[in-house]
Amino acid sequence: MSDYIRIDHGSGGVASQELIKDLIIKHLGNPLLNRLEDAAVINHQAGPIAMSTDSYVVDPLFFPGGDIGTLAVHGTINDLAMQGAQPRCLSLALILEEGLNLKVLERIIISIKNCCDNCQTEIVTGDTKVVPRGMADKIFINTTGIGFLPADFHISPSMAKEGDNVILSGSMGDHGITIMTNQAGINLDSRIKSDSQPLHRMIAGILNEAPEAVHSLRDPTRGGVATSLNEIAEASSVHIELIEGLIPIQDEVKAACEILGLDPFYLANEGKCLAIVDKDQSQAIVQAMQQTEAGRDAAIIGTVTECANGRVSLKTKIGGNRIIPPLTGEPLPRIC
Amino acid sequence: MSDYIRIDHGSGGVASQELIKDLIIKHLGNPLLNRLEDAAVINHQAGPIAMSTDSYVVDPLFFPGGDIGTLAVHGTINDLAMQGAQPRCLSLALILEEGLNLKVLERIIISIKNCCDNCQTEIVTGDTKVVPRGMADKIFINTTGIGFLPADFHISPSMAKEGDNVILSGSMGDHGITIMTNQAGINLDSRIKSDSQPLHRMIAGILNEAPEAVHSLRDPTRGGVATSLNEIAEASSVHIELIEGLIPIQDEVKAACEILGLDPFYLANEGKCLAIVDKDQSQAIVQAMQQTEAGRDAAIIGTVTECANGRVSLKTKIGGNRIIPPLTGEPLPRIC
Repeated sequence: MSDYIRIDHGSGGVASQELIKDLIIKHLGNPLLNRLEDAAVINHQAGPIAMSTDSYVVDPLFFPGGDIGTLAVHGTINDLAMQGAQPRCLSLALILEEGLNLKVLERIIISIKNCCDNCQTEIVTGDTKVVPRGMADKIFINTTGIGFLPADFHISPSMAKEGDNVILSGSMGDHGITIMTNQAGINLDSRIKSDSQPLHRMIAGILNEAPEAVHSLRDPTRGGVATSLNEIAEASSVHIELIEGLIPIQDEVKAACEILGLDPFYLANEGKCLAIVDKDQSQAIVQAMQQTEAGRDAAIIGTVTECANGRVSLKTKIGGNRIIPPLTGEPLPRIC
Repeated sequence: MSDYIRIDHGSGGVASQELIKDLIIKHLGNPLLNRLEDAAVINHQAGPIAMSTDSYVVDPLFFPGGDIGTLAVHGTINDLAMQGAQPRCLSLALILEEGLNLKVLERIIISIKNCCDNCQTEIVTGDTKVVPRGMADKIFINTTGIGFLPADFHISPSMAKEGDNVILSGSMGDHGITIMTNQAGINLDSRIKSDSQPLHRMIAGILNEAPEAVHSLRDPTRGGVATSLNEIAEASSVHIELIEGLIPIQDEVKAACEILGLDPFYLANEGKCLAIVDKDQSQAIVQAMQQTEAGRDAAIIGTVTECANGRVSLKTKIGGNRIIPPLTGEPLPRIC
C-alpha cells in the first residue's frame, strides 16, 4: 500500500479494493462488513427502529480528548440514545482528499474501531470517495446509525411539562473550548479536553430507573446548552429557568471563556445530555446518572415553569435574571 | 433568507434552523422529518433490514440526465435493491461550502424531493454542516438508506453458479461518458445523457417472476461492468464469459468511447444492474425486466462457465477472446 491517498483509491477498482481490505476491513472487519456487498442486512425483531445521521468535518482532526473518529462514533450513538434507542450498528462513509497521509487515516480508523468496541456496536456498511487535492480538507466522515427501542416508548423535545426539573449530565463546554483553543493555536490549560464519550449506557440506566419520568433528552452539541434548551422550550411551549450556581462547569473552562470572551452556554458538548424529567423522580435520575462514568457530575440545573413563552432564562448568582436566547452567528466553524 | 450559504448556517443555532425550515423542510417535509429530533423512529415488523450508505461528490453538480440529488437518491436506493430490499427511508447529510448559492442548493433539494416521491420513499432524518470557502467543493451529499426484505431471502455476489446466465438490464456506460465529457467541457453528442434512475421496481418485478432463480445482483457504478463482474467472479470462484455482440451499448456512447480512447466496460452506470440468474429462467427474467422502464433494453450478455478462476473474459465479434480485468487506476475522479 502506498503512503498517501491517490485519486484511484476512490475509483471503485483495484486500488479501492486494496484500501478497503488493507485498512478498513483490517481494523473494522466483522461478518456483516466483510461481505462488502452493496448493503448490509441486519436481523430484527418487530418494533421501532431509530435512525440518525451526522457528518463530521472537525478541524483539527486530532485534539485533546478525542479525534474525528471518536466524534463520528459517539456523536451518532448519542443522537440515537437521545431517542431512548440502544445502538445496533453504524454505516461509515469517508470523503478523502487526494494526498491524505494513510497513517493519519489508519489512526482514525483504529480510533473508530476502539470506540465501536467500547460501545458494543459495529460498522456494517460503508463507502469511500476520493476528491482531488484542494476539493476537500483531508477527511470528512459520515456515520449513520440504527438503534432499537421499545414499542411503547416516547421521548421528545415537545414533552417537557410545567414543574419538570432540568438535568445536565456533566460539566458544560469542554468540547467547544478544546476545539476553539486548538484552532486558534493557543494552549490555555492542558487539563482542558473534549468530553467526547458515548451516552447510551447512561441513558439505559436512567430509563431503567424511571422510564415514565424522562420526558425530553437532548445532547447539546453545536449551539450548546443554550440552543438545545431553547429548542425544547419552544417545542414544548414552556419556559425553562436555569440557576447559575447549579450548572456544572470546570474552573479551567470558565477561566478560558473569560479570557476569550466566550459564553459557555453556547459551547458545543460531545458527551453530555440535557434531560427534562418529572420533578418527583429527578433525584433518583441524577443518582442513576452519577453511577455511570458519563454522568458522574450530573446535576439538576433548573426547572420548567408555567410561563408558556418558549424561552430560557438564567437566575444569576448575584440575583439577576437574564434571557438566554438560541445561538445566532457562529463563533468558529468545524467544531464537530 | 440570504442568497448564499454562510458559516453560521452550520452553527446549529438560529441560522441553521432557518435554513432547515425555509429550505429542507419546505421541500422534503414529512411527519418523521418535521419533528427535527436527533433520530427518526421508524416502525417495523420483524424481519431483516438492509442498510446502505453512499457519499456523492460528483462534478459537475448538474449534467444531462440528472444531478447530484438524483444520484444521491437513486444510488442508495439501487444499493438496497441489489440486496433485494425495497427502500423504506433515507437519511440526508449535507456538507456545504461557505458561499454556495442557495438557489443551487434549492434546485438540488427539489430534485431530491422529486426522486423520493417517484421512488415512494422519504428523507426521515438529516444533518447539515458548513465548511469555510475552499475547504470543500460546493456540496457533498451523503444518503443512507434502510430497506426491508423477506426473511428467507438470499442474494449475494458469491452465489453465481456454473451454467448461470449473465443479464445486463440496459445499455452500458451512459453515466460515465456523460460526466467525463462534461468535465472535459466537450459536447460530443447531445443525445448522450446519464442513466440515473431507480431500479427497485424492476428488481421487485424479477424477484416476483422468479425469486429462486436470481443468484447475484450488482449495479455497475464506479469501475463499470468490468469491475462488478470481476467482483462476482472472484466472490463465487467462477469464470464469466461475455459475448461482445450481445452487450447493449448506445451507438453514441460507443462512438464517444472510440474518440476519447475509453473502454465502455469501465464506465460508471447509475441505473443499470447485472443479474446472475439460473439459465432456465433467464428468458423470463429478461422479459420481466423489459416490461419496466428501467429494463427495456435488458439482454443476456454472457454465461458463467466451469473454470473456477475468478476471471471475466470477452468473446469478441471477430472471434477473439480477451480477459477483462477489474479497473486499475482512475480515468477521471468525481464520477458520482
